[in-house]
Amino acid sequence: MSLGEFDLIAKYFVRPAGQGPRRAVVGNGDDCAVLAPAAGMQLAVSTDALVEGRHFLSTVDPARLGHKALAVNLSDLAACGARPLGFTLALTLPRVDEAWLAGFARGLLDLADEHDCELVGGDTTAGPLAIGVTVLGEVPVGGVLLRSGARPGDELWVSGHPGEARLALEAFRGTLHPSLPAEAFDATRLAMECPQPRVALGLGLRGLATAAIDVSDGLLGDLGHILRRSGVSADVFADALPLSRWLAARPRHEQLDCILAGGDDYELVFTAPPERHAEVLALGAQLGLVLSRIGSVGHRDGSAPRLRLWEGAAPLANRWVSFDHFRQPSPSTPAPNPGEAP
Amino acid sequence: MSLGEFDLIAKYFVRPAGQGPRRAVVGNGDDCAVLAPAAGMQLAVSTDALVEGRHFLSTVDPARLGHKALAVNLSDLAACGARPLGFTLALTLPRVDEAWLAGFARGLLDLADEHDCELVGGDTTAGPLAIGVTVLGEVPVGGVLLRSGARPGDELWVSGHPGEARLALEAFRGTLHPSLPAEAFDATRLAMECPQPRVALGLGLRGLATAAIDVSDGLLGDLGHILRRSGVSADVFADALPLSRWLAARPRHEQLDCILAGGDDYELVFTAPPERHAEVLALGAQLGLVLSRIGSVGHRDGSAPRLRLWEGAAPLANRWVSFDHFRQPSPSTPAPNPGEAP
Repeated sequence: MSLGEFDLIAKYFVRPAGQGPRRAVVGNGDDCAVLAPAAGMQLAVSTDALVEGRHFLSTVDPARLGHKALAVNLSDLAACGARPLGFTLALTLPRVDEAWLAGFARGLLDLADEHDCELVGGDTTAGPLAIGVTVLGEVPVGGVLLRSGARPGDELWVSGHPGEARLALEAFRGTLHPSLPAEAFDATRLAMECPQPRVALGLGLRGLATAAIDVSDGLLGDLGHILRRSGVSADVFADALPLSRWLAARPRHEQLDCILAGGDDYELVFTAPPERHAEVLALGAQLGLVLSRIGSVGHRDGSAPRLRLWEGAAPLANRWVSFDHFRQPSPSTPAPNPGEAP
Repeated sequence: MSLGEFDLIAKYFVRPAGQGPRRAVVGNGDDCAVLAPAAGMQLAVSTDALVEGRHFLSTVDPARLGHKALAVNLSDLAACGARPLGFTLALTLPRVDEAWLAGFARGLLDLADEHDCELVGGDTTAGPLAIGVTVLGEVPVGGVLLRSGARPGDELWVSGHPGEARLALEAFRGTLHPSLPAEAFDATRLAMECPQPRVALGLGLRGLATAAIDVSDGLLGDLGHILRRSGVSADVFADALPLSRWLAARPRHEQLDCILAGGDDYELVFTAPPERHAEVLALGAQLGLVLSRIGSVGHRDGSAPRLRLWEGAAPLANRWVSFDHFRQPSPSTPAPNPGEAP
């Protein structure tokens, strides 16, 4: 069965009246959508594309793929402390597969509804499978969380359990010894395919964190962006890194590889003054989200993060580097040890 | 030579301080860019992706491709009467080719500068060549040009000389008899590869046009969107259609195929009350842009446009249909007569 471009958008992505958020003054279907941030708010914008063979495997469940395409973008809003308003979708499809489209739209729009984020525009094209999303959110004037605000003396925090997505990816690649038990594989695969953007955490960190970033390319690599922008250094304490149940059962070198350089985590790394330690913990408790203090910000200028076993211990050799799409092999091919520098 | 993802963005797309528009409160390089529409303004958003083999040929000059990727999006802003503010770029590249990237960035950023439109965010990925752009603009509250505002009695207008892009495409496909002279090929190829978004026209039409759309899928097909949204009919007068120098030299059936169903024109089709005829002409003169009155809006509900040779003549059979990416063969393969309905 063949469907035209206009039918596709109408059938799968335009919501019936009364269903889903309606924030656009002019919605999906005119040349532009029109949105208005609330008074005193500025607009936060981010864009991310997902390409088959690079960001996802062709076997992925379409609902999970729809979820992830939006999740990785909402994660950027979260890192800025922005509240989601709407998003646009540019979808390139090799063919019109209605079962696939229905699943994709469900995963995408369910997550959109959860975050009150309206699909305000779209474009579909025939071509190799790729998904481009641009999200729009609002932040109070002067209230955006930046990478550049970390100060010497700040504590360094991370949300959730980074490393699970990479553990699942390595299980797919068959590089794990011992191999991953089925239950662990299912759980970590969910973390890889259905990351939860930390939108509520980002909102809670407004006025509390001094800097934040989301972990898409690996914890140490992304932390490096904060350090360079803020002109500070940081110590990360290996023994303070949060281990999920599944990572806790793995060899130590694998734990560190996955947590420090895994990528695809969509947790937030952030800095906050030590006198606000209790407030950070209270926020985590309120959100039901583990927030772990994993290090400290120091004076030295913009260098790579230093790794120590614990606060005050001697620095370890740091061989964990940032994930880079142009330097890594595709996820469908076996990779070298992800912790090895190129 | 291999460049990483972060280097790519920094090298080709981040402007030196003082060069290019600076409108973002937080620019390219943080998780989100932050923008603020001016007081009394709302935000207009549109997104379009260009995929190799579908929207452009692999042989296209990269500077022209960079120009076009932004132009087709600015054209959507123009159709809404929005002033460009900024845009995001999601670039998928099969490999890092520095000469290509330098050309692409030049074409893209030159057009961006011309329209005072800042690149506020980006994402690069390895994969099949594709370019996703999302543009953001501002429109006065209540002042957006819509597809739904056409009223019976309005005059129907088109800007410029639609049809040239399709003439060039058919020359590439080798379907033209007689074939196109070299000078005509170069000129129409420029129209296809470097369309000029009618941003200034869109701004001038605020408060003057009752409805507008940009011609991306063919004049009659796009006009059909206005008719359906506005609940009106329209007559298009074949003898009033503007013929460029190059189209004027072609057989009549080819002229009509290209103008009425060509697509890829990025001219504006709009409606305006007859008592404002002189104002429309004055706007065209001011902008140095041909604006042609090509028809009338009637009462009958949301049907396909009717074609007549001139006002009052009997309707002609209308075999021109909308361009549809999922129904058309790719531009690299010969197509049937573009005017034939499937």
